Amino acid sequence: MTQGNINVSVENIFPLIKKFLYSDHEIFLRELISNATDATLKLKHLTSIGEIKTDYGTPKIEVAIDKDAKTLTISDQGIGMTGAEVEKYINQIAFSGAEEFLEKYKDTSKDSGIIGHFGLGFYSAFMVAEKVEIVTKSYKDEPAVRWICDGSPVYTLEEADKTKRGTDIILHIAEDSTEFLEESRIRELLLKYNKFMPVPIKFGTKTESLPLPEDAAEDAKAETVEVDNIINNPTPAWTKAPSELTDADYKQFYHELYPMQFEEPLFNIHLNVDYPFNLTGILYFPKLTNGLNIEKDKIQLYQNQVYVTDEVKGIVPDFLMLLRGVIDSPDIPLNVSRSYLQADGAVKKISSYITKKVADKMVSLFNENREDYEKKWNDIKIVIEYGMISEDKFFDKSDKFALYPTTDGKYYLWSELEEKLKPMQTDKDGNLVLLYATNEHDQHSYVQAANDKGYEVLLLDSPIVPHLIQKLETSKEKISFARVDADHLNNLIKKEDSAISKLNEEEKESLKKNIEEAVNDTKFSVQIEDLESTEAPFMITQPEFMRRMKDMQATGGGGMFGMGGFPEMYNLVVNSNSELASEILKNENAEEKNTKIKYALDLAKLSQNLLKGKDLTDFIQRSYQQLSK
Amino acid sequence: MTQGNINVSVENIFPLIKKFLYSDHEIFLRELISNATDATLKLKHLTSIGEIKTDYGTPKIEVAIDKDAKTLTISDQGIGMTGAEVEKYINQIAFSGAEEFLEKYKDTSKDSGIIGHFGLGFYSAFMVAEKVEIVTKSYKDEPAVRWICDGSPVYTLEEADKTKRGTDIILHIAEDSTEFLEESRIRELLLKYNKFMPVPIKFGTKTESLPLPEDAAEDAKAETVEVDNIINNPTPAWTKAPSELTDADYKQFYHELYPMQFEEPLFNIHLNVDYPFNLTGILYFPKLTNGLNIEKDKIQLYQNQVYVTDEVKGIVPDFLMLLRGVIDSPDIPLNVSRSYLQADGAVKKISSYITKKVADKMVSLFNENREDYEKKWNDIKIVIEYGMISEDKFFDKSDKFALYPTTDGKYYLWSELEEKLKPMQTDKDGNLVLLYATNEHDQHSYVQAANDKGYEVLLLDSPIVPHLIQKLETSKEKISFARVDADHLNNLIKKEDSAISKLNEEEKESLKKNIEEAVNDTKFSVQIEDLESTEAPFMITQPEFMRRMKDMQATGGGGMFGMGGFPEMYNLVVNSNSELASEILKNENAEEKNTKIKYALDLAKLSQNLLKGKDLTDFIQRSYQQLSK
Repeated sequence: MTQGNINVSVENIFPLIKKFLYSDHEIFLRELISNATDATLKLKHLTSIGEIKTDYGTPKIEVAIDKDAKTLTISDQGIGMTGAEVEKYINQIAFSGAEEFLEKYKDTSKDSGIIGHFGLGFYSAFMVAEKVEIVTKSYKDEPAVRWICDGSPVYTLEEADKTKRGTDIILHIAEDSTEFLEESRIRELLLKYNKFMPVPIKFGTKTESLPLPEDAAEDAKAETVEVDNIINNPTPAWTKAPSELTDADYKQFYHELYPMQFEEPLFNIHLNVDYPFNLTGILYFPKLTNGLNIEKDKIQLYQNQVYVTDEVKGIVPDFLMLLRGVIDSPDIPLNVSRSYLQADGAVKKISSYITKKVADKMVSLFNENREDYEKKWNDIKIVIEYGMISEDKFFDKSDKFALYPTTDGKYYLWSELEEKLKPMQTDKDGNLVLLYATNEHDQHSYVQAANDKGYEVLLLDSPIVPHLIQKLETSKEKISFARVDADHLNNLIKKEDSAISKLNEEEKESLKKNIEEAVNDTKFSVQIEDLESTEAPFMITQPEFMRRMKDMQATGGGGMFGMGGFPEMYNLVVNSNSELASEILKNENAEEKNTKIKYALDLAKLSQNLLKGKDLTDFIQRSYQQLSK
Repeated sequence: MTQGNINVSVENIFPLIKKFLYSDHEIFLRELISNATDATLKLKHLTSIGEIKTDYGTPKIEVAIDKDAKTLTISDQGIGMTGAEVEKYINQIAFSGAEEFLEKYKDTSKDSGIIGHFGLGFYSAFMVAEKVEIVTKSYKDEPAVRWICDGSPVYTLEEADKTKRGTDIILHIAEDSTEFLEESRIRELLLKYNKFMPVPIKFGTKTESLPLPEDAAEDAKAETVEVDNIINNPTPAWTKAPSELTDADYKQFYHELYPMQFEEPLFNIHLNVDYPFNLTGILYFPKLTNGLNIEKDKIQLYQNQVYVTDEVKGIVPDFLMLLRGVIDSPDIPLNVSRSYLQADGAVKKISSYITKKVADKMVSLFNENREDYEKKWNDIKIVIEYGMISEDKFFDKSDKFALYPTTDGKYYLWSELEEKLKPMQTDKDGNLVLLYATNEHDQHSYVQAANDKGYEVLLLDSPIVPHLIQKLETSKEKISFARVDADHLNNLIKKEDSAISKLNEEEKESLKKNIEEAVNDTKFSVQIEDLESTEAPFMITQPEFMRRMKDMQATGGGGMFGMGGFPEMYNLVVNSNSELASEILKNENAEEKNTKIKYALDLAKLSQNLLKGKDLTDFIQRSYQQLSK
C-alpha cells in the first residue's frame, strides 16, 4: 500500500475559477470591494484597540476607470500588506485572510463588521482581467510592494514607490470583458452590490475642462472644483436603533432602496435580533395598488451590508414575499441548494422569527390606531389572509388583528363578529351562519335581500378566500360560511317558524310543471318556496359546496380533482307567494304564460350575470320594442 | 524583483469544492454517472477502432444503496484505470481526463458522444461523502487497485482483488447527507438527470423473499427471479432521424418526458443541425387548455443526453417558452451569467435557428392540412401572435401561416382577408377597416349589427391582441382596426352616401337636450345619428384609441403612462330615426319621458356590460313589477 498527497495542479485552477467559481462574472467587483472594506475595518479595529497608534480618520474606497489604459482600479486606505503578507495571502490560493484575522482577534473583533465571507474573492478578478496588479503599503514601517500576475501561475513581486498606506488593485480588463470599462456598468454594479457598504466609496471619472469663451473662465473654474462622488450610504437605516429613527427616516430609506417607487409604504417592521442568530432589517408593507413592480422590487438580502440576492424564498415565509425591504444576516448560508436551505435549522428559526415579528406588529398597529388600520386593511389583507392559511402560528394570533369587513363598510374582529351576528344569524341547530359576498356589485340583489332581512353580509373578495373560509370552518366551532347567493336566505339560515303559502300543494305542482316546461333547460332545477310576497318572484342560486370547490381549484390547490370540467348547476327558486306566481297560474293564454316565464327567467339570470350573448341581445331588442309601444 | 509560482494549498481546496463548486449538492450523482458513461463510451470507441480486441457487448452502469453500510455505489463496466492512471487522473485535481482523451483520439472520437464537460466531476463526491473508495480494473492486463480518501489530502492506494473490468465508486455518505441513502431520492435524481443517458443504468434494491405458505413456494420462486431495473432510455427519440420516427413515437416520447401530462401534444418540431453549431431536439406545441403545469413542464436542456436545466431563457426565444420538449447541444455555454448568455454569438444563432424552424413548420402544417391547422389555431395562436410581435423575422413569414378568425367561425390568411373584405369594408378614403371583437358574447349585439350590415367581424381574443393590432397597423398599408363597439358602424366605416333623417335640426337639438337632462351623467356624451329606423334606438360606444391604450397597459408594456387612472368615457349614440326617438319627442308627460329615456339607457348599458350593482337590482325589480301587472 502506498500513501500520498493529493496534488492540485495550478495550471488548471485558473480556468476552473473562471468557469465555476461564480456563475455571474460581475461578482468580481463585489469581492474586491469587500476586501477593500475588510482592510479598512481592520484598520479601524486595530486603531480602536490601540494596536495602531495613528488616527483612524475618514478613509475611503475609490473606484476608477482608465479607458485608454483599459484598467479598472480599486484603491483603499486600509491596513495594506507587506511583501511577506502578499506572499502569504495572495500567493497561497484559498487562504482566507479574514478568517485568520478573526481567529487572532476573536475577543475584540466581534462587532468590527469584518466581512470575511467571500474567502477566495481576490482571484475572481481573473474572471474579467488578463493581468492583475497589486500595489500595497502596509501600516507597518516596511516598503510598498507591487505584485503582478497574468493568470498563469507565475507572478512577480518587487518594491514599489507607493508612500500612502493602503492597497490599489489594478485590473487590466480582458478583451471579452470590456463592459467593465463602461462608467454606466460599474455604477450599476456599485449601486447593486455596494449601495449600503460601511466604508464610503468614491466613484466618478475625472472632470475635464472644456474650451470656454474667455469671459466665462471664472465660472468654469468654479465648476471644475472636484467634489467627492460618494456613491454609497455607509449607515443605512437598518443598522441604526429604532429609537434613532423617525417615520420620515423609514420612508426616506424606502425610497433609497427602491428609487422607482413613488408610492409611500403603508408601514414598516424593524427587525433586530442577536440570539440565537444575528439578524437586522426593515420590512415594508407596500401599497399593492396595481400589479406593477411586484416582481422587480423585492426584499433584498444582505450580509454585513453587502448585497447578496433578492431571492429570499425559504428565508422569508412565502406569505411575506409580497413585502419589500432588507434583511441583513451573517447566519444565512449562501451557495447552497434551495432544498438544503429549507431544511436548515437556522433558516427555519429566522423564518419563524420574522413571522412572529410581523404578527406582533399587526397587533400593535391595530391597537394603536384602529381607524387607520381599517383604512389600510384592503391593501394588506391579501398578505394577512395568505399568512393565516399557510402558517398555523400566525393563524392562532390572527384573532387579534385579522379583520372581517362587511358590505356596508364596517370592520370586525372575529370575536366582535360572533357577538354581533349571533342573535340574528344563528340557525335552529345553534350554528352561526356567516353570509358573505365575493363581489358586492355582481351579487348586489342578493346582498340587498339579506340586508332587508336584517342580516349582515361580509365582503370577502381576495382570490384566496375559499381557502381562508375552509381554514376558519375547520378551526372555529359551530360556524359555517355561505355565499349570499348559495340558496334562498330561508334555507341558508333555517329558523323554526314555518312559512305560509297562498297556494295549495296541487297549485304548486302545477306551477312547477308550467315553469319547467317553459324553461326547458336541465341546468336549472326548479324549487318552489313560500317566501314573502314582496320578495323577488324568481331567483337563481348556486349551491355553496360545488361553487367553493370550483373557486378553490381556480386559484390552485384544494378542490376536487376534475371539478373544473363539472357542469354549472343552478337552482331556480320560485316564490309561490309572489304576484307573478299567481299570474302565471291564472293565465290561460299558453303563449303569454310562456313569454312571462321566460322574461322572468331572463331577469333572474341578469342578477347572476348569466344572461349573455345572443340571449342578452334578444332580451334588449324585445325590451326596446316594448318601450316604443 | 522575485518571481515565483502561485501555490494552491490542498487543505483549503476540499472545503472550497464543497462550498462553491456547485450550488446544488445533488449534482454529484450526475457527475459520477457522467464519468461512468465516459468510461463506457471510451471502451466502445476503442473496440470500434480495434485498439481493444474484446467485444463491446452490452455494458451497464449500476447504482446501488447499502443502508446498513451507509454507502452508495456507482459501478461501470467501462475501460477502468490502472494504478498509474489513478495517480494521474484522480490524484491530480482539476486534470480533466476526458479532454486529454479527446485530444489524443480527436480524429476518431468525434462522434463517440463522450461527455467530458464536467471535468472536476469526481471530486464533487466529497460534497456528500465523508470517505470515497475507488475500486477499478483496467482493460489492460494489470492488477486492480483500490484508492481511498477521507477528504483530507492524504489518500491510500493498494492492490485489489476485482477481476472484472470497470470501476466501482463507493461513497461513504456523510451524516448531513443521508438523504442520498434513500431509494426514492436516488430514483428521483436518476430520473431527473440521467433519464436519457446513452448507457443503460440499473437501479433497484435487491429483491427479498418473504415468508410464504409452502404451497405457494413455486410461484414465489418465479417472483424472485432478478429483473434488470433499467431506469433510463439510452436512445431517446431526439437522437434518432425523423425518418425513423412515426407520429406515435413522437407522442410516446412526449409522455416519457412529461409523465404527468395526459393531454396529447398538438404537433412537434424535430430540430437537427450540425453547422455552424450542433443542436438536436424535439419541440412540442402543447394544448394550453388550462393554466396548470405550464410552470412545471418546461423545455429541458441537455448536453450529450445529460440533463442540464429547464431554464432555457435566452436560448429559446421568449415567445417559444410556452412550448415543451428537449434541446440537446454541446455548444451552449453553461455556468455563465444570463447577460453573457444573451450576448453570446452561438446562443443568438441557436435562438434564431429555432425561430426559423418553427416558422417553417407552421407553413408546412398549414399547407399540408389546412382544416386540421384551423382546428388547432385556438391552442397555438398565443404563441404565434407573441412571436409576430416580438420577432421581426417571424412576423415577416407569418403571412403564410397566421390566421385571422371571424366571429362566425371562418379563418383567413391576411391576403385572403384583404381580398374578402375590401369590397365591403373600404371606407371613402380607400382605407380597409378591419372590425374585431375581443369577446363575442360580451359584444354580441354590436357583432350582430355589423353582420346585419354585411360586414365581417374578426374574433381576436388573446390578451396581447392590442399589441398585435398595433404591429399590423404599422406594418401594412392603408388598413386600420376598430373594435366593433368603438363607434356606430356608419362612423367606423365612413361611406359617401348621406343619411336621411325623419327629424329636422331643431327636433334633434330638442331630443338631445331631453336625453342629456334625463341621463345627467358626464360619463356619457350624447350623439344624435341618422341611422336605419330598424337599428337600436340607443347604443353605447367607447372610442378605439383610448380603450386600446388601456388594454395595452393592462397587459403590460405599451400604452401611455398614467392611462390607467383615466376616467372611462363613453358616447351615447341615439338613433334619430328610431320609433323611440319620435316617441320621446312626442311625449308631453315629463315623468314618463324621463322614465323611458332612463330605461333605454339601462338597456344600452346592459349590452356594454355596464349595468351593475344597485342600478341592475333596481332595473330587475322594476321589470318584475311591470311583468306582474
